[in-house]
Amino acid sequence: MKHLLLAAAAASLALPVIAQEPAPIPSPGEIAAAAPARDWIPIAPSDLLVMDLAPDAKGKARRVVIQLMPAPFSQGWIGNIRKLAAAHWWDGTSINRVQDNYVVQWGDATEKKALPVGLATVPESEYVAQLSKDLQAALHTKLKSEEAELLAAFHQPGGEKVQAIKRAIPRDPFAKETIAFRGWPVAVDRQDQTGWPVHCYGMVGVGRNLSPDTGSGAEFYTVIGHAPRHLDQNIALVGRVISGIEYLSSLPRGTGALGFYENEKERVSIASVRIASELAAADQSRFEYLSTESDSFARYADARANRRDPFFIKPAGGADICNIPVPVRAVAK
Amino acid sequence: MKHLLLAAAAASLALPVIAQEPAPIPSPGEIAAAAPARDWIPIAPSDLLVMDLAPDAKGKARRVVIQLMPAPFSQGWIGNIRKLAAAHWWDGTSINRVQDNYVVQWGDATEKKALPVGLATVPESEYVAQLSKDLQAALHTKLKSEEAELLAAFHQPGGEKVQAIKRAIPRDPFAKETIAFRGWPVAVDRQDQTGWPVHCYGMVGVGRNLSPDTGSGAEFYTVIGHAPRHLDQNIALVGRVISGIEYLSSLPRGTGALGFYENEKERVSIASVRIASELAAADQSRFEYLSTESDSFARYADARANRRDPFFIKPAGGADICNIPVPVRAVAK
Repeated sequence: MKHLLLAAAAASLALPVIAQEPAPIPSPGEIAAAAPARDWIPIAPSDLLVMDLAPDAKGKARRVVIQLMPAPFSQGWIGNIRKLAAAHWWDGTSINRVQDNYVVQWGDATEKKALPVGLATVPESEYVAQLSKDLQAALHTKLKSEEAELLAAFHQPGGEKVQAIKRAIPRDPFAKETIAFRGWPVAVDRQDQTGWPVHCYGMVGVGRNLSPDTGSGAEFYTVIGHAPRHLDQNIALVGRVISGIEYLSSLPRGTGALGFYENEKERVSIASVRIASELAAADQSRFEYLSTESDSFARYADARANRRDPFFIKPAGGADICNIPVPVRAVAK
Repeated sequence: MKHLLLAAAAASLALPVIAQEPAPIPSPGEIAAAAPARDWIPIAPSDLLVMDLAPDAKGKARRVVIQLMPAPFSQGWIGNIRKLAAAHWWDGTSINRVQDNYVVQWGDATEKKALPVGLATVPESEYVAQLSKDLQAALHTKLKSEEAELLAAFHQPGGEKVQAIKRAIPRDPFAKETIAFRGWPVAVDRQDQTGWPVHCYGMVGVGRNLSPDTGSGAEFYTVIGHAPRHLDQNIALVGRVISGIEYLSSLPRGTGALGFYENEKERVSIASVRIASELAAADQSRFEYLSTESDSFARYADARANRRDPFFIKPAGGADICNIPVPVRAVAK
């Protein structure tokens, strides 16, 4: 992995290209960085949840920024979360659980703090959404190219048919198909006409008790390991961490069952949680994401699935949806 | 996620089962824990690499145990690693890089420490192995059931054929197929008759410079995020962390390029690295893994892909190879 450092350093020097030596093929990150401004979509401050943890042992500030999920997904819980944030409900709560290769969880450790009045009880049916017209249109385009490949695969001689079909079908181990849509990783079932967000690294979900409980939105977790996709459709996803995940992922692991902190002194205090638009303008960070509907994103996704930048000797020819994270970046003030 | 705690607690109470109430369906972990002793295979101390980090800020010991990969995979590098360990080469080196959702990397930060004489230069061709007879036999069994499902899918009416085939084929986004084999996650290509280990969470690989360098085995990394499967076949995997991964995954992230520590004081000192059989008997920990060829593992894998234990309301019907980690446990002395 030393090489990765070398490769990145070489690219940043931007040496003049000599005619005989083709320019190195750009990495996915370089493709995203080179995307024109029009391909970057600003994230509204009203869709950002800003969580300030207590400063660390050295007094350093720790800010975690979460982008809330847009319609048509999980809007019942999002409504509750907006009410909880407006009530400053999380101020003084804590991070209570850190389970390696799984989740960090936070909220009211006592489980006794009264919730604001008027929170919705969201039904399990809202773990999935009906496919919107524009998601259907995006899938239609995807299907055309897929079916053409599959048709070609059918014409392979018998013995090679299975392998050819395996190559032809975009493969997701958990869902019939997946797509990056309007900035988010989504799984879909065309037959049921449903779609749902998926549990990639950094995604934020709503803790719940056993079914039929669906959680109010007061208890959160975020993924800090390999995507636990078995949670998809079983629990509500409401956003993703777009800045400061390291303040959560590098916390000491809890030694209790499921990674809960056994000693309450181990818990990390949450100073405040606010919708960004509620903060003073000077305290608001701005972010933007690479449009998943742009050509830049198509090139970025292709490069993630087929690494051809200098370090790589064999492109994979595929990637799972969580290995194609949507680029998000802070906007300089 | 509160529920997970509740579910686990309820299971551990082992209440008498009432005839009208079926016993809760066991979780994957419960299936593994209930496997008979004959399904657990001891790991030879000669295949364990024991890395003791300097104690943490509170003086607590930090031991990381790595299981080395067996033949036919990566044996050229494994030979080098055995020589480096015998020479106590890593003593006094350090952890130099921690990149969030990617890798922790360790070795000689100066890149100037002389290597022992006689290390092999391993060719890139050894990133993959020829399929052994027993791996071929395992795949033959897998293929039979797969082809039966695929054949049934072909007989679906036209419009449903694509979806039926998608359901019928075990899906891996990166390789034609994957299999848990002799305790390890492996990808295979029947056509090329090759197989290779895959980059799941906790897997340990060998840092290298740009091709044709393949690394000596003196520089290590381990995966601490979503499986970076694009590295498969591009870099040598030589083992996996089976104990103490939290001492690596919870380290502060480096703020330099690629997560390198910018200040050398941030580096974490490695006190010693030994093959376990070189340690005093009292200092050797014993481990065993659940045979991937056992019926217990088949039930465990099925349960990972189809969660039916009390918390879940909708089984996924699939899982990727990295979501079915091979159970490994310490053996009480």
